[in-house]
Amino acid sequence: MGNRVITLLTDFGTQDHYVASMKGAILSINPRCTIVDISHQVGPHDIQGAAFLLGSAFGSFPKGTIHVSVVDPGVGGPRRPILIVTSRYYFVGPDNGLFTLALLQDQVRRVVALTSQKYFLPRIRSIFHGRDVFAPVAAHLSKGVLPQAFGQKIDTWESLHVPRPKRKGRGLRGEIFHIDVFGNLISNISEACLSEFSEVQSFSIRIGNRVINGLKKAYCEAKKGEVMALIGSGGFLEVSVREGSARKKLGVERGDKINVIVS
Amino acid sequence: MGNRVITLLTDFGTQDHYVASMKGAILSINPRCTIVDISHQVGPHDIQGAAFLLGSAFGSFPKGTIHVSVVDPGVGGPRRPILIVTSRYYFVGPDNGLFTLALLQDQVRRVVALTSQKYFLPRIRSIFHGRDVFAPVAAHLSKGVLPQAFGQKIDTWESLHVPRPKRKGRGLRGEIFHIDVFGNLISNISEACLSEFSEVQSFSIRIGNRVINGLKKAYCEAKKGEVMALIGSGGFLEVSVREGSARKKLGVERGDKINVIVS
Amino acid sequence: MGNRVITLLTDFGTQDHYVASMKGAILSINPRCTIVDISHQVGPHDIQGAAFLLGSAFGSFPKGTIHVSVVDPGVGGPRRPILIVTSRYYFVGPDNGLFTLALLQDQVRRVVALTSQKYFLPRIRSIFHGRDVFAPVAAHLSKGVLPQAFGQKIDTWESLHVPRPKRKGRGLRGEIFHIDVFGNLISNISEACLSEFSEVQSFSIRIGNRVINGLKKAYCEAKKGEVMALIGSGGFLEVSVREGSARKKLGVERGDKINVIVS
Repeated sequence: MGNRVITLLTDFGTQDHYVASMKGAILSINPRCTIVDISHQVGPHDIQGAAFLLGSAFGSFPKGTIHVSVVDPGVGGPRRPILIVTSRYYFVGPDNGLFTLALLQDQVRRVVALTSQKYFLPRIRSIFHGRDVFAPVAAHLSKGVLPQAFGQKIDTWESLHVPRPKRKGRGLRGEIFHIDVFGNLISNISEACLSEFSEVQSFSIRIGNRVINGLKKAYCEAKKGEVMALIGSGGFLEVSVREGSARKKLGVERGDKINVIVS
Repeated sequence: MGNRVITLLTDFGTQDHYVASMKGAILSINPRCTIVDISHQVGPHDIQGAAFLLGSAFGSFPKGTIHVSVVDPGVGGPRRPILIVTSRYYFVGPDNGLFTLALLQDQVRRVVALTSQKYFLPRIRSIFHGRDVFAPVAAHLSKGVLPQAFGQKIDTWESLHVPRPKRKGRGLRGEIFHIDVFGNLISNISEACLSEFSEVQSFSIRIGNRVINGLKKAYCEAKKGEVMALIGSGGFLEVSVREGSARKKLGVERGDKINVIVS
Repeated sequence: MGNRVITLLTDFGTQDHYVASMKGAILSINPRCTIVDISHQVGPHDIQGAAFLLGSAFGSFPKGTIHVSVVDPGVGGPRRPILIVTSRYYFVGPDNGLFTLALLQDQVRRVVALTSQKYFLPRIRSIFHGRDVFAPVAAHLSKGVLPQAFGQKIDTWESLHVPRPKRKGRGLRGEIFHIDVFGNLISNISEACLSEFSEVQSFSIRIGNRVINGLKKAYCEAKKGEVMALIGSGGFLEVSVREGSARKKLGVERGDKINVIVS
């Protein structure tokens, strides 16, 4: 049990000592756990961006992994610190919707409001719950403390609004939900949704002022600089430019529309 | 013993292989230790900045942790490589003041000049003591080699000048000692110093052209864009802007003055 | 065996979840291995840059370390995924020349084309072999699966063209092979090559419009802002500026010439 994996996802960056302080707090309680960074370069207070990263990465980790996510503009305010137990994982962080996309892919078993101060650091700073509340709770959990020991069971928690693709005549309308560091435009249209929409694998995709015909299987099927559509690594329809940035080339931002039309 | 934590703090960045080479050198000697990065984004040769990060993070780690810090403009020159043993930790690095702020918070037990070449890598490059001297010394230490085996005990070592806040009439004058990546202005005025200065919790703070009344408990007590003062996560008076950069908004730099006045 | 070190070198950056997904995939198969990042800030598709970093860092790691490198513009195309066994290490990644500089320093024992799908993740995305092919292969290898189990032995593999320094009259002509984040210009002229070229340690070095006389032993032997030549941490002739960037000061780029002349 002590050998658990704990992941960290924050908007703290890696320039300051904040992430290291969380790791020190964890290792002081359980020196045997394995800590893995998901990312600390989430945009400041970008809960949706963090939710996307967590939803994309969490399922690759071993069963029993404890995912700690801290993008927390409301720290020190009324938002609750929570622990969510699902069929495969544990999630620890502020109750502000961070876990929305992960929870869509896993079954919630129990949600607990973190109130048992004996699992926090002795002196809590109201501005650094990452180190003082979430890190020690995750560490105690990794040592076998039962979820119910951390506080009262609760029945409601915050969720982000997750836009779903919509049928529109002969088309399917979705939106760009995430843009990665390479400028790839990742939509909210899953591969499953696309197959359901049309059995023929023959689509055209409209985004910005572009029409893209058909799906590629890999980046290298396109020419350098060519705009293409494909199913990305997370299983969603993605628009990319080979060895370039689709964001820049198409001038598209998060939230912009993408349409799929049977051709 | 072999299961020790070793932390690394450098100005090497993470783009090149330098940090990885240090980790490889450590794991080649002790494959069982746990290595944690404090930061590698310290400004080039910024000893004060590194000292601040170490002083802020070191105390979160388990007793017995070995803190390796390498911001070392004098590498290959006359400055000594040293090992400092305190009541709770070990510190390994160049003798240039890097450990000053940590040592103010812990009791020095022994300081050793690293001269026993048998604990260095066989071929030492005079420009990369991080890999060739400090990493292997830390790794051998983590395996139980005694501090006195690494070289002669010494009685003096370098310290940075750490400015202390001063009483000035009805006020207290400190300075900005660190600015984090979010633009928060962290002063040298500790919470203890502030309580000592005045029992009434009613201050006004002057910095740049601003006057800030009172302390907030958390960022979320301010409105978006509002300038506020609070006690930061390290226990020092800090000036922040909610969801913004106090550095930019106030045009303040490291070393600038901050005044506290009983109101 | 389970306690092996696995290193990761990619051009994925640390902003997105890609690296974390690889780590999760590894830990799901072998929770006991130690994962170390070499770098994830290689320029996009910069195979030569990655080859340099790997060639500089790999030899610091313990015997038996598994080096996974994924800079892979041809992912999903005809390039083969491979495993290379050398006298001391294992290398896993695409067959595109990434391992060239490491293999010059180690003896190749066996090369295998990765074809046994049972060691891949159940559902392979053709655009993310890092997570779906290379990470699980490395993890299974770290648990003791024999190299021959992963696929057929092959006898040829891709290599980068590595320029070698040339004698030219009384001079030696090399080129800048890598520029690090500090702007240090690292040439392809090794210390051994330099000693062979002339027993007298008295050279002048021409690069850009500069002539540099002699070698320094350490950065601190130069004055602030001075251009100097020295043997760098990897054992190659390097041109640096103390507390500055030689790249900027000399206007030199990768591939530019450097000449050594006996003075």
